[in-house]
Amino acid sequence: MSDLLFAAEPRQRDIARELYTLARDLPLISPHGHVDPGLLAGDEPFPDPARLLIVPDHYVTRMLLSQGIPLAQLGVPSRTGAEVEQDPRVIWRLLAENWYLFRGTPSRLWLERTLSAVFGVDERLGPDTADQLYDTIAERLTEPEFRPRALFERFGIEVLATTESPLDDLSRHAKLAADGWGGPGGRVITTFRPDDVVDLEFDGWAGNVARLGEITGEDTATYSGYLAALRSRRQAFQAAGATSSDHGHPTARTVRLSPSDAAKIFERGLRGTASAADAETFRAHMLMEFARMSIEDGLVLQLHPGAVRNHNKSLYAVHGRDVGGDIPRATDYVHDLAPLLDAYGNDPRLRVVLYTLDEDVFSRELAPLAGGYAALYLGAPWWFLDSPDGLRRYRDAVTETAGFYNTAGFADDTRAFCSIPVRHEVARRADAAYLARLVAEGRLPLDEAAETIADLAYHLPKKVFRL
Amino acid sequence: MSDLLFAAEPRQRDIARELYTLARDLPLISPHGHVDPGLLAGDEPFPDPARLLIVPDHYVTRMLLSQGIPLAQLGVPSRTGAEVEQDPRVIWRLLAENWYLFRGTPSRLWLERTLSAVFGVDERLGPDTADQLYDTIAERLTEPEFRPRALFERFGIEVLATTESPLDDLSRHAKLAADGWGGPGGRVITTFRPDDVVDLEFDGWAGNVARLGEITGEDTATYSGYLAALRSRRQAFQAAGATSSDHGHPTARTVRLSPSDAAKIFERGLRGTASAADAETFRAHMLMEFARMSIEDGLVLQLHPGAVRNHNKSLYAVHGRDVGGDIPRATDYVHDLAPLLDAYGNDPRLRVVLYTLDEDVFSRELAPLAGGYAALYLGAPWWFLDSPDGLRRYRDAVTETAGFYNTAGFADDTRAFCSIPVRHEVARRADAAYLARLVAEGRLPLDEAAETIADLAYHLPKKVFRL
Amino acid sequence: MSDLLFAAEPRQRDIARELYTLARDLPLISPHGHVDPGLLAGDEPFPDPARLLIVPDHYVTRMLLSQGIPLAQLGVPSRTGAEVEQDPRVIWRLLAENWYLFRGTPSRLWLERTLSAVFGVDERLGPDTADQLYDTIAERLTEPEFRPRALFERFGIEVLATTESPLDDLSRHAKLAADGWGGPGGRVITTFRPDDVVDLEFDGWAGNVARLGEITGEDTATYSGYLAALRSRRQAFQAAGATSSDHGHPTARTVRLSPSDAAKIFERGLRGTASAADAETFRAHMLMEFARMSIEDGLVLQLHPGAVRNHNKSLYAVHGRDVGGDIPRATDYVHDLAPLLDAYGNDPRLRVVLYTLDEDVFSRELAPLAGGYAALYLGAPWWFLDSPDGLRRYRDAVTETAGFYNTAGFADDTRAFCSIPVRHEVARRADAAYLARLVAEGRLPLDEAAETIADLAYHLPKKVFRL
Repeated sequence: MSDLLFAAEPRQRDIARELYTLARDLPLISPHGHVDPGLLAGDEPFPDPARLLIVPDHYVTRMLLSQGIPLAQLGVPSRTGAEVEQDPRVIWRLLAENWYLFRGTPSRLWLERTLSAVFGVDERLGPDTADQLYDTIAERLTEPEFRPRALFERFGIEVLATTESPLDDLSRHAKLAADGWGGPGGRVITTFRPDDVVDLEFDGWAGNVARLGEITGEDTATYSGYLAALRSRRQAFQAAGATSSDHGHPTARTVRLSPSDAAKIFERGLRGTASAADAETFRAHMLMEFARMSIEDGLVLQLHPGAVRNHNKSLYAVHGRDVGGDIPRATDYVHDLAPLLDAYGNDPRLRVVLYTLDEDVFSRELAPLAGGYAALYLGAPWWFLDSPDGLRRYRDAVTETAGFYNTAGFADDTRAFCSIPVRHEVARRADAAYLARLVAEGRLPLDEAAETIADLAYHLPKKVFRL
Repeated sequence: MSDLLFAAEPRQRDIARELYTLARDLPLISPHGHVDPGLLAGDEPFPDPARLLIVPDHYVTRMLLSQGIPLAQLGVPSRTGAEVEQDPRVIWRLLAENWYLFRGTPSRLWLERTLSAVFGVDERLGPDTADQLYDTIAERLTEPEFRPRALFERFGIEVLATTESPLDDLSRHAKLAADGWGGPGGRVITTFRPDDVVDLEFDGWAGNVARLGEITGEDTATYSGYLAALRSRRQAFQAAGATSSDHGHPTARTVRLSPSDAAKIFERGLRGTASAADAETFRAHMLMEFARMSIEDGLVLQLHPGAVRNHNKSLYAVHGRDVGGDIPRATDYVHDLAPLLDAYGNDPRLRVVLYTLDEDVFSRELAPLAGGYAALYLGAPWWFLDSPDGLRRYRDAVTETAGFYNTAGFADDTRAFCSIPVRHEVARRADAAYLARLVAEGRLPLDEAAETIADLAYHLPKKVFRL
Repeated sequence: MSDLLFAAEPRQRDIARELYTLARDLPLISPHGHVDPGLLAGDEPFPDPARLLIVPDHYVTRMLLSQGIPLAQLGVPSRTGAEVEQDPRVIWRLLAENWYLFRGTPSRLWLERTLSAVFGVDERLGPDTADQLYDTIAERLTEPEFRPRALFERFGIEVLATTESPLDDLSRHAKLAADGWGGPGGRVITTFRPDDVVDLEFDGWAGNVARLGEITGEDTATYSGYLAALRSRRQAFQAAGATSSDHGHPTARTVRLSPSDAAKIFERGLRGTASAADAETFRAHMLMEFARMSIEDGLVLQLHPGAVRNHNKSLYAVHGRDVGGDIPRATDYVHDLAPLLDAYGNDPRLRVVLYTLDEDVFSRELAPLAGGYAALYLGAPWWFLDSPDGLRRYRDAVTETAGFYNTAGFADDTRAFCSIPVRHEVARRADAAYLARLVAEGRLPLDEAAETIADLAYHLPKKVFRL
């Protein structure tokens, strides 16, 4: 078995390998991610290698962009009508020529391991192998074993949570349920992600709120109707298997407004007269409301703060959201979460999973908070941080203060379905390597490390996310 | 000898072991901590195992709290009259059942090493060993060798500084002096910690200031009388052996007010009309005053900024201060300390020891400051950071800029008397491991590393704290 | 060959040694630094050992200052007329007596390796060897092989960029060009550093602007004449070989002012009525202007933000600038650079190299920015961070997000000519050690690591700095 990601020192490496073996074959729990549920509902063959592995992966496209290659040359869809490369082989070759840029990055690791473990391709990607690899993968994609559901089984996924807006009609999840793949306790479940109806600054917010009314039959022209509509959608999401909500806010701010003050901002939003401060206050208030709803209905509340969305404005203008133009920012949790924690922080019915893009807060804020409030769990390293060294720094920064059992297990958080196994493999290897160091340094007996690696890989995420 | 905390690589590990051997048996210098002086003054037997090792240790109780176990079940005294578990064996069993939560934490290391080195107990704590361990420890506690003074001698402590308010009558230190244990140059000394008479936001500040007047015979209804009273108490503390003061402020802010402006805020404080900004300004001003007093009387000034006190408000409401409800916050030293450094930063008569809960500032702010001002020393990693990996990251972050000799040596900062030896052991092992890496990488000759480990463990804290 | 800075584990160490061998003998590219060009223009012998190795090196003098040794005792020139030690042997002995303070610091490494590799001195510095070492070095300095140009050749420097103000007449670079050493593509080139005519808070700014007018023949009493004068000097600098500009600002702020608003602030500056906010806004605006000029003339724009200049005020009062009294501060890049990136961030004609003193931003801000904008490159760890562990933490923090090819290669940034080889050696060793870990952990094939180490050491800085 490969020793990928284990320290070079032989004794410590042996321990890491032994621990990893205990986690390697456990089923995958994917409690948070962005896979398109239509993929599994429809179970159609994947398109070509480029549209499977390059075009939708903003880790890959942003690296090429950073070296001056416009996304249009990479086939990333444009919303301005600008011309975009259509030939997948041309896109694939462009990646192959620039593959050296990815040395030392997790993207390289993920793609290479995916090619090897999923497609059986072990040649190194490069200008001279590009066509051969392309042909091999393209051929595989036509075979029934490479359809999404077949891969899902092969990957050993026990449960996969996708992420949808309250405006989603959940028809894809209904199809999955009808096929025995979805619904409460099912293999593919949804997650309630209401940003587009909560964030007054979201493009088309007022229209979204109106649609929310139509879908639910509530009068969302009023604040109380709006709250009722959200509650109603949460129930529908739970019927589609959801066990958690997810909130992507610029900051972690929380605040308790009176209902009438909240209603006033809501109405300014509908009239189009809300300020940026209004929007921030309303998001902060709604987090409190969602925490209260969570206490009622049991959805785990996930919070993903700290991204400056669409920082690369010209990218956004041409290609829209989620194409690699977001940038992290410094994030405060200690003051911003105080109102929520004052109200509900010691309430064991509430469960909040906190993520961050700002790893400086792991030891200073997040580990002390998760290690001191019953409601808080520390989410896995997110986005730029879910890499081998990011995962190592995370355990190094948080374990001594929060232990292992205030963390929530790994969340792959990916749109790239085929990368799910390798992402979990990397996380399990990184945890094995970390635990092996504790064992080698005399800080943890081997039998307890063995129990812990299985908990981190499987039992803990199931428990924390109420799966 | 055990290789606890040393890197797995055999050559580096051999060097670490060799270095640690040179520090292992040096006397313990404990220049800052929170042991109750009454313990050593009275020299009574310790109570039961739970009240010795669990109830007062907020590292331990906050971890259990974070998993939903209320502090009342752990016997933590309540100030609301709420019922609290009284049976120490029940508390002990609760810890034993949840002992797995502490994997990878320094609390586990400290407790296990304490059980082994102090009480001779080597069985692993767990539900099935809980009663047996309890009985063994309880029995030991009745023996004369387990009284505080006997343990003090066994631990090899040369000097232990406790920490008292200016309102303390120092009678316990007088008893110690009478017994040949205290006074200037004695084995147990005090530290001047005036927060409760300096911080206008401290519960009962005005009453405290009045009491300060009674104790000193100064008229503390006036600002000048207040300053005179503080000077008077500093003298009394020096007579009780104090060589340092200690200041626990929300920020590191310093500011020079004119005497009349300071007096105005002081008077607003007495009248109960001071604002939060007044309180912050007054604390900042008083740090400048204390620096000036330090230059006069030679007390080393310790500054512990950056805790949000009683962040967990409901915990505070029921159980009061210092039960694990404080959380770190981002702290600025570069701008906040500028007024103090402009005035006294290059004055070698002043000695300021800076601590932090925000390890992000070690390389950016604290190492450059300590490596560039004669008056500044860098205190040991504090609180959440005085762990094996916290200590490693500290040396890694500060040494290249500030060297070893602008650091102040280890301060255990503990209330838990029995954990003092293991805390120093961990610090000495961590320093040995760090120095061993420098030696193994060809960055420091072994003979100089050997001299350095002894300096860090013993000579440096004695010198920096003027002991 | 020595294994300095390589990890102790034998297999990983072997890989590091093999990789370092591939970089060791490549020519040195020094794209940014502060060597006095007069040194190489005049090619006079260096003065005594103290004035060569101690007096001008503020890393060395600040460490001694931090332990209470005034800079005057170290011969650092005073601008107040205060007496200053003149005897170089006395200064040298003072360093030797306090040499233990430098254990674990890069200053020790740099000085020892310089003594060994440049002067052939392998005895350890200390009180008993001080005189002997002094005499040996002093004697060497009289020999022709120790003149600056001879050392330049011996060091294997291919190109060295010095840094000058637009007010510099570039006569020293003209002399170098006349001797076949300078000019475009030459061995010694300049860098355009306009802080003293851009920063309204710079001592004597208005006078500097007037001189800028005299030098260029432009009317710098007007804002448009001022811009024309700057453009004119940039051309003159390019004629003296410059391929980059450099900007040392307190923050990374950028802002687009209208020409008339910019002119108003400029005029307030000339009249002496500009506020601190004016100065900050003007610096921010001028960065935008310089980016625009860079797109026109091709100079690479280097930005060095985040130093609080002359934090140690009494040091500044006596000894002036650049004597070790600056301190880093927290720096924001995500918001501050947004205006510049909105305007030019995806323009491949612009090249901006970002440095920082705040390593907390490496993973949170700088790697995501450099890995997401075509115009941005990440500069080498700067100042307090260009040490073995600083370099390691840098690669560890940035590589997974930005890769290797969005970094700009090593910049020694030094005034200390003789330390140039060892600084590059340390950087090459640190990169070899980092790459060796990737190889040992199965994350990068050895042949690609081999290609990468040569790129980092040589090809990448040449390309990024357009040399």
